[in-house]
Amino acid sequence: MDNKQFVKEIADINENFAQWYTDVVIKTGLVDYGPVKGTMVIRPYGYAIWENIQKDMDRRFKETGAKNAYFPLLIPMSYFTKEAEHVEGFAPEIAVVTHAGGEKLEEPLAIRPTSETIIGTMYSKWIHSYRDLPVIMNQWCNVMRWEKTTRPFLRTSEFLWQEGHTVHASEEEAMEETMKMLEVYRSFAEETLAIPVFTGRKTEKEKFAGAVATFGMEAMMLDGKSLQAGTSHYLGQNFSKAFDIKYLDKDSALKYGYTTSWGTSTRMIGAVIMAHGDQRGLVLPPKIAPIQVIIIPVAAHKGGVLEKAKELEDELLKLGVRAETDTRDMSPGWKFNEWEMKGVPVRIEIGPRDIENNQAVIMRRDTLVKDTVSLDNFGKTIFELLPVIQKEMLEKSRKLRDARVVEAKSLDEILKGVEGKNFVKAGWCGCRECEDKVKEIASATARVMCDEEGVPDKCAICGKEAKHKVIFARAY
Amino acid sequence: MDNKQFVKEIADINENFAQWYTDVVIKTGLVDYGPVKGTMVIRPYGYAIWENIQKDMDRRFKETGAKNAYFPLLIPMSYFTKEAEHVEGFAPEIAVVTHAGGEKLEEPLAIRPTSETIIGTMYSKWIHSYRDLPVIMNQWCNVMRWEKTTRPFLRTSEFLWQEGHTVHASEEEAMEETMKMLEVYRSFAEETLAIPVFTGRKTEKEKFAGAVATFGMEAMMLDGKSLQAGTSHYLGQNFSKAFDIKYLDKDSALKYGYTTSWGTSTRMIGAVIMAHGDQRGLVLPPKIAPIQVIIIPVAAHKGGVLEKAKELEDELLKLGVRAETDTRDMSPGWKFNEWEMKGVPVRIEIGPRDIENNQAVIMRRDTLVKDTVSLDNFGKTIFELLPVIQKEMLEKSRKLRDARVVEAKSLDEILKGVEGKNFVKAGWCGCRECEDKVKEIASATARVMCDEEGVPDKCAICGKEAKHKVIFARAY
Repeated sequence: MDNKQFVKEIADINENFAQWYTDVVIKTGLVDYGPVKGTMVIRPYGYAIWENIQKDMDRRFKETGAKNAYFPLLIPMSYFTKEAEHVEGFAPEIAVVTHAGGEKLEEPLAIRPTSETIIGTMYSKWIHSYRDLPVIMNQWCNVMRWEKTTRPFLRTSEFLWQEGHTVHASEEEAMEETMKMLEVYRSFAEETLAIPVFTGRKTEKEKFAGAVATFGMEAMMLDGKSLQAGTSHYLGQNFSKAFDIKYLDKDSALKYGYTTSWGTSTRMIGAVIMAHGDQRGLVLPPKIAPIQVIIIPVAAHKGGVLEKAKELEDELLKLGVRAETDTRDMSPGWKFNEWEMKGVPVRIEIGPRDIENNQAVIMRRDTLVKDTVSLDNFGKTIFELLPVIQKEMLEKSRKLRDARVVEAKSLDEILKGVEGKNFVKAGWCGCRECEDKVKEIASATARVMCDEEGVPDKCAICGKEAKHKVIFARAY
Repeated sequence: MDNKQFVKEIADINENFAQWYTDVVIKTGLVDYGPVKGTMVIRPYGYAIWENIQKDMDRRFKETGAKNAYFPLLIPMSYFTKEAEHVEGFAPEIAVVTHAGGEKLEEPLAIRPTSETIIGTMYSKWIHSYRDLPVIMNQWCNVMRWEKTTRPFLRTSEFLWQEGHTVHASEEEAMEETMKMLEVYRSFAEETLAIPVFTGRKTEKEKFAGAVATFGMEAMMLDGKSLQAGTSHYLGQNFSKAFDIKYLDKDSALKYGYTTSWGTSTRMIGAVIMAHGDQRGLVLPPKIAPIQVIIIPVAAHKGGVLEKAKELEDELLKLGVRAETDTRDMSPGWKFNEWEMKGVPVRIEIGPRDIENNQAVIMRRDTLVKDTVSLDNFGKTIFELLPVIQKEMLEKSRKLRDARVVEAKSLDEILKGVEGKNFVKAGWCGCRECEDKVKEIASATARVMCDEEGVPDKCAICGKEAKHKVIFARAY
């Protein structure tokens, strides 16, 4: 199979981005469709990315004092009705267990769409005194939300995520936690996924069902659309009152706690694909790439080539680099295509002539630039190259994004902006009608507010006084 | 609260082992009961043990070439009927989703009790050629089996586990995989949990529903009962035929693969508790203890004590020892009890007089022996002590167990054996009636067969010719 044929298997990234995405996730073996509508199977190559994401993020959580725990999958349906907004938001998406052990259940049980209700119930049992606060727990688990339209990683009925749930003695502390975790997400997205994000408060319309305020991070995909990659919610006393999370304060008064929750999911893998990919397929940032360096022996049947390849692999493995040698009985060209499609950050080619010249051929997946690298200090050279790639991928993404953020002073300008595949910043009066109008006319939504940049005088939609500056975009 | 009162909170380990277990799991904060009957909440102290188990085991799996993946939670009910024995074994325990997204589903969906059926379905899609084999995948996930009688960690309707699923070209390879994973489990149990186990083939009655042969590992608890801590199944072509897992072999013939599956669960935490605990509570092996060394400042208000404690903690942390200093405003005695109950392997006490003498007081949780340790090379001393504790805990368990394995030549001797809290080895003719009789008369079951030790002449139950040597025991 020649190069062109291989590349052609993936739909044109400019002409049909949606099909390009589907081709990439399926053909690189990241994911497959499960038998039940809307479910996905995360295959080893995709799951290895998730493991790298988990490891990195988990460390960041623990550094803030969070401890992991595990709460039950099944939640009595009645729990959802305790917080009015929450049930309204989630009830339509719940999968319900009605029978178990061969019998009809007395009360139907929900498969968790999110765990505020069951964790709140347990917290109410565990928290008694101000000495018990703050409580900062996280869980890595599966959740289920029955969605009509689904796409692997982006929107599936079951997905994997982490959900943090905290309780604090005061509004200030809870708000501080909310913002701290938003910052953990932001720095993770930039440092580990090499994706620059806009963070900010969500509008009332876009906030989490039951929250006082939701803060989100939004990443620009290559098609100019926004992907919400993580949210941090300040829940005030909404859930502590609904679930009776009370503590005896120093002044002997019984008080309700202030709670937060925050989550990110396997959706982030979708963000990585759509923020960095190209016509050849995936482009993975080194920090999350299952294989960071692929070594391809050229003329592998010749004496010494395979041995040298393995030697280089060992040199890299010793430095903690995730390296692999592709010894399969296929042509080098076929392998080049395969590993390019799979987004491996660095490709090393080593053949008899390279060995003679004490060098190897190196190709960076992000720039597609080919070069030679000396075999002296080979391991160290590659080891030091990976963070450079990581950094440059972020810079490239940032430039690409920054060139596509425009300001708008009218609904028409908003429409033109999003049609031109941009994020559009505009003044907004704060009313739901104007927000709905942007949705109706421009198929765009308010992603986050960025008032700190300075609120424009007028609402771009109705012309009345603006109260916020908003980033509008089409979104996943 | 004085020492005695504190200890009294836990039921007598000799008089009421079941209550002792419940007291320990609840009072040490390992676990709590979930709101839905039979579910458990794994609290941070319990979950940290699970994380240590996962990390260690996952490394062992990956060393055998296994890759992690994730398959959907929900399985169409019809899948279970494809393998006759499998559905018979699992149907009575399945939790069923009948409604989702506000509508009744066309086909009811099972929450996975185990994933052979859905993974088999995907494998049939992915495997085409002998080049695709072997496939060795594992997933860490939650499963659900609706149980009538439940106990935290030991038997809960939802639990966390890992399930490996493999496909091979030949019977030999599949059997080799089955035995290899059994050995991974055995070495893990001994090296990491410090629990000696008997491994061997299960009888037809006790095997996994749908397997050709099940191999298990059985650990003796302090009450002489056995706990099945892991199983490895050779599935032959039962599932490959039911789910159409075929491959084109080198000889161009289309053949069914041979599959295996193997699993261990949060049940292992129950095994650790019941294999090592004592009247004061948990005794955790260093390798899985969330906190390996607890440092307790004595007369902490005196100048230099807290500083010294933190210094020792730092020394340990730098060596990778999981150390913590308890700076809470409680008496040292109260803290001693708390951390003994929580099973922390090493306790360090440091007060003004200790500092003067350039020493600290050390207590090993496993032996309860108190000693002093020099502050010169303190970190190294403790670092080197942990594997000693680990090793001695295994030796102690092994001695305890070996002293409680007896041989029996009659049903009466089997009964006396298990009533004396022993494992009982006996000849068995191989018929189900004799197995049922042991259950009826002695409330004991065949745990594993150990024919390699030499099969006795006669069946201890019916007196006919013995075909196997079996370990009978009462079991969890």
